Amino acid sequence: MPSPPPEWVKALTPASPQGTDLLKQERAQSNVEVDKLAEFLHTKAFLEKQQRFVELLSSEKVFDKSQMHSQGRSERIQRALAKGKRLQQLKEKYNWSTEDFHFASEMIGEPTPYGLHASMFLVTLREQCTPEQKKLFLEPAEKYQIIGCYAQTELGHGSNVRGLETTATWNPEDKTFTIHSPSLTASKWWIGSLGRTANHAVVMAQLFIAGKNYGPHPFIVQIRDLETHQPLENIYVGDIGPKFGYNTMDNGFLLFNNVKIPHINMLARFSRVDKETNKYVRPASPSLVFGTMTWVRSNIVLQAGSVLARGVTIATRYCAVRRQFQDRDAKADAGETQVLNYKMVQIRLLPLLAAMYALHFTGRGMMRLYQENQNKRAAAEAEQDKRGAAPEALRAGSDLLADLHATSCGLKALASTTAGEGLEICRRACGGHGYSSYSGIGPYYSDYLPTLTWEGDNYMLTQQVARYLLKSARAVLAGKGTGNDTSQILQAYLARRDKGASFDILEVDSDIVAAFAWRTAHLTFEALKHRDLEKRSWNSLLVDFWRLSTAHSQYLVVKNFYEAVSSPDLAAKLGPETTKIMHDLFRLYALHTLEREAAEFFSSGAVTVRQITLTRTNAVMKLLDEIRPHAVRLVDAWKIPDWQLDSSLGRYDGDVYPDLFNRASQNPVNDLVFDPYPWNEAVLKNAPKAKL
Amino acid sequence: MPSPPPEWVKALTPASPQGTDLLKQERAQSNVEVDKLAEFLHTKAFLEKQQRFVELLSSEKVFDKSQMHSQGRSERIQRALAKGKRLQQLKEKYNWSTEDFHFASEMIGEPTPYGLHASMFLVTLREQCTPEQKKLFLEPAEKYQIIGCYAQTELGHGSNVRGLETTATWNPEDKTFTIHSPSLTASKWWIGSLGRTANHAVVMAQLFIAGKNYGPHPFIVQIRDLETHQPLENIYVGDIGPKFGYNTMDNGFLLFNNVKIPHINMLARFSRVDKETNKYVRPASPSLVFGTMTWVRSNIVLQAGSVLARGVTIATRYCAVRRQFQDRDAKADAGETQVLNYKMVQIRLLPLLAAMYALHFTGRGMMRLYQENQNKRAAAEAEQDKRGAAPEALRAGSDLLADLHATSCGLKALASTTAGEGLEICRRACGGHGYSSYSGIGPYYSDYLPTLTWEGDNYMLTQQVARYLLKSARAVLAGKGTGNDTSQILQAYLARRDKGASFDILEVDSDIVAAFAWRTAHLTFEALKHRDLEKRSWNSLLVDFWRLSTAHSQYLVVKNFYEAVSSPDLAAKLGPETTKIMHDLFRLYALHTLEREAAEFFSSGAVTVRQITLTRTNAVMKLLDEIRPHAVRLVDAWKIPDWQLDSSLGRYDGDVYPDLFNRASQNPVNDLVFDPYPWNEAVLKNAPKAKL
Repeated sequence: MPSPPPEWVKALTPASPQGTDLLKQERAQSNVEVDKLAEFLHTKAFLEKQQRFVELLSSEKVFDKSQMHSQGRSERIQRALAKGKRLQQLKEKYNWSTEDFHFASEMIGEPTPYGLHASMFLVTLREQCTPEQKKLFLEPAEKYQIIGCYAQTELGHGSNVRGLETTATWNPEDKTFTIHSPSLTASKWWIGSLGRTANHAVVMAQLFIAGKNYGPHPFIVQIRDLETHQPLENIYVGDIGPKFGYNTMDNGFLLFNNVKIPHINMLARFSRVDKETNKYVRPASPSLVFGTMTWVRSNIVLQAGSVLARGVTIATRYCAVRRQFQDRDAKADAGETQVLNYKMVQIRLLPLLAAMYALHFTGRGMMRLYQENQNKRAAAEAEQDKRGAAPEALRAGSDLLADLHATSCGLKALASTTAGEGLEICRRACGGHGYSSYSGIGPYYSDYLPTLTWEGDNYMLTQQVARYLLKSARAVLAGKGTGNDTSQILQAYLARRDKGASFDILEVDSDIVAAFAWRTAHLTFEALKHRDLEKRSWNSLLVDFWRLSTAHSQYLVVKNFYEAVSSPDLAAKLGPETTKIMHDLFRLYALHTLEREAAEFFSSGAVTVRQITLTRTNAVMKLLDEIRPHAVRLVDAWKIPDWQLDSSLGRYDGDVYPDLFNRASQNPVNDLVFDPYPWNEAVLKNAPKAKL
Repeated sequence: MPSPPPEWVKALTPASPQGTDLLKQERAQSNVEVDKLAEFLHTKAFLEKQQRFVELLSSEKVFDKSQMHSQGRSERIQRALAKGKRLQQLKEKYNWSTEDFHFASEMIGEPTPYGLHASMFLVTLREQCTPEQKKLFLEPAEKYQIIGCYAQTELGHGSNVRGLETTATWNPEDKTFTIHSPSLTASKWWIGSLGRTANHAVVMAQLFIAGKNYGPHPFIVQIRDLETHQPLENIYVGDIGPKFGYNTMDNGFLLFNNVKIPHINMLARFSRVDKETNKYVRPASPSLVFGTMTWVRSNIVLQAGSVLARGVTIATRYCAVRRQFQDRDAKADAGETQVLNYKMVQIRLLPLLAAMYALHFTGRGMMRLYQENQNKRAAAEAEQDKRGAAPEALRAGSDLLADLHATSCGLKALASTTAGEGLEICRRACGGHGYSSYSGIGPYYSDYLPTLTWEGDNYMLTQQVARYLLKSARAVLAGKGTGNDTSQILQAYLARRDKGASFDILEVDSDIVAAFAWRTAHLTFEALKHRDLEKRSWNSLLVDFWRLSTAHSQYLVVKNFYEAVSSPDLAAKLGPETTKIMHDLFRLYALHTLEREAAEFFSSGAVTVRQITLTRTNAVMKLLDEIRPHAVRLVDAWKIPDWQLDSSLGRYDGDVYPDLFNRASQNPVNDLVFDPYPWNEAVLKNAPKAKL
């Protein structure tokens, strides 16, 4: 620990005005109802729970965050394991639900090596085990008597699951499978919790029976000894090394040299090998897995709002505290201006403030649709079981699920890109201090970035959206539209295409939504023309598909946001003034997006060049003025606890500079004493040597 | 060191086709003349030097790069100091020039704690010392007998130098200055090499004489004992803690409690306090400093090309090795497609490939202009000394310098943003493996990001460009254009505004340049109208100014690139085939930029909607097809040595997967053995505890 500052340093305070006073002023100048809004966003129960968790977790020394950004990987990952263990102990002690546990895991600020055991491993076992397998694997896994991971991607194979090389060959003679890695690129790679922690893995491998490949299937394989924790024979396993973020997770590699596992180790709820006939038995219900992915993606959309909210909370508060330069038009004796007053800062931050609300409401909307669909589906399946035939309702459910699946792909891509890139915009808006780890943005951004790649790479996913829209357009043209929202916007466009659009985006909010729908429909029929009439190759259209998916997803966000701010529920709960600000945020998000994508909006004929110019020079600028006074309260309403933000810049009380100074003076590099001269050989000899 | 892999693992190779074969094919299918192009870009002398340096540096154990991404800050910074010392020893041993030394520093892959001593401290002493001060400070500094830093920014004060709080008060009674930090926000902050290394600092402080403030001036202050390296009395100094990157640098803080320094410690080449009269003596030539900033920014533009080239080299080679999915239109038995064949990957990577060339040629062009201007200036000054009056040439030189200054501000912002954001695009184009530190992109990106903030924040700088363009437009309207390029494009626009533009951007390359010029001129006169006629506030126009600066800088890049590829010198040195590809790269850079900024191009009337649509759907797509076969050779021509890239993915030979595997299996986390169970209290007790 570095020596404490001398008395004359302790006596120093920041130059006036103080950050605490500036934030008080900010809060005084707005009438946004922070508590009501917070409850509307998160529910009262959630906010109370959050408070309890902060108190509990921050009182435990093991969760101290003060030095984690200075440590090397070996130290960090060991400390993170200790955190993971303590979380598990607390879960038992306080009888937390799974949701509580994930909430606590999120609060501690970094992933732990238990992360993939607690999520994908347990989820997979729950979903894909037979009752017998649940006893054998899931029960000890839930008690952390076995620790697992989910081993799908390989060194040479990411998104394309069908390209996996690992094989599982059925041996009819002794009723076992042989798990094998035929090449170096077959090595499992990136597998969370595998590198040092897991003793079991769910391994996705190509199932071979009598020489025929039945595609990838899940197998559970023990990989380390339960006592010594050493790898078992013919297994080579380890950690894949340092990363851009996520360094407290032991993402691992794994190779098998003809490892035999018993028949029971193939997860058999959906498909299996019959032990007697040695035949493959087909999957019972593949769409259930499809449904899980949809849920995971919808959840990413919902989370993206909160992820972005962390960055926006930090940057907004700090830009209200930070002052830099005088306004050029101000009087000579005016002090420096709050950075948040500069239009160049507002145009970067306030649309992101709007976006965090937009994504939150969109995520909520999707979760609701997903739940409704699950309920309908469950009812239809019960019906089917009773009657023994597939009723109409089940097919309609499939249609809805297909729509939800496509929607979730596009929105996952848009939402996680918006959140990830938004965090970096927030970091830069904090100026030089944004680069400090004590800003709280950089480390969080680094840990978040994989979300843009996992659960479907954001660029790859856009093809699924395009495929769905093309299919819907073909159905509409053939008079077979399903009546869902996608069909409706395509039909509306066709009906009015000849007359042209005349949306009043500057005055009528619902016309903004209609303009986004028009653009989607226009791009869909353009893409359809290229593909079906001009017979252009799929590859040559990928860029168009990406644009189309982005356009469609933006439409969905705008629509969801509009519906949320127009709902009687919102107006009733928030009162007229806060409701009005919510409408402003909707308009800012929508018009700012429209203006950034201006070219597509006019080339589709959705709006005129004059409207775009007015949007840019008048409407957006006016909205910035309207929202500016409420910015701090609008981030306050997200109620992210200081302990979770872990940011000098984003502190609720605005006491930025003393906090930054205290953290800096305590940092462990200040324990070092350098010999600063290059010529002293003795010192050079004592300097740490590279290992190699 | 983790245990080596067993024999069965060592026997594994990647699945075919091998990366080495794929890169051989890539190189075989293109006739770009790599060696000629490399010499044209870098000169033969540079390439030879690079080769010598790689051999020398890579043979020294202290420069080993293998574990640097796994270490904690304390370890890393000590190792980096050892590297800095060794570099200094080698400099002496081999009698390197300053340029050689900076080149070697760049190659070792991370900043060292000597970084700011070797750059800003020495440069400032060279520029701002009197001959007497040079003896006293510069000479020992050059011998590393004193180690220094440049202490300007403060905890509460970044870009706005006039807002600095540190004071230097002249004491006429004993002919000293008192250096003092009046508040906590006055603490010097972010100062490279200060935290643990420097024993001297150039401190920028407000000079007070007899109660009057003469603004910020530089003072040299000793801060640590030359023997014990402990801070001197009334000085509090330390390292500011972990950062997003640059963690091998000891950026520091520094507070003074009324520290007295002698008269000689005010750097007095340009302004000083007269010891006898106690009066302030005015600066001799303020524009010289102005010139240095211009040089620094021009250099950032030139470097931005090479920075981007590292990311593009890695991503292009890896995307040629990586295969994923089949093309949807391909036959069923076709293997997976090289990722570089996907249009969605090409549209992200190939415009960056073009941009790295564009920035390189632009940086070259600026350095040449700067040098010409310096020469003219020197001649004019000699003339002035002889005749005793300011000749016309000196004023013309000032005009040119003002143009160069504005140009360098805008281009610094555009170039460093393009390079920084481009690196992240390259990282993501590498898919999951881009996230590994062994990709070589992430750590480099993190270290590069401060360039977007220092030497003028990229957003702040755009105001200077706008101010210059408004001034030029006013001059042109008043019939007082200077005849420089800026005046010419403004005049050309005015002359033709009524007739309208009719540029043939799809067929005539020089018309593309003209369209970019037109857009700049249009935005300039629009901004002028808002400011001078409509009297809008400066703040309300900041967003327009940022757009204007970006537009102008893009014009300059397009113009410089066009001039470079059209030069007879290039055609003579590269031959017709390589010259043709250079033209394609120019067109891709220009048309891709035009298409992304489409809204401004049509609203200015520079092009029609139809032209934009054709640019998007035909011209750009066709250029991607044309350039694709040459991509690997076009990055090869940059000749970045493997040792410098330090990337598994970007290896010249394409042997990606074995390299990634070897690095992973050697990483120090694999030395750890975990107790994976959360219930073992004994183990928990032995786990590392948080400090606090």
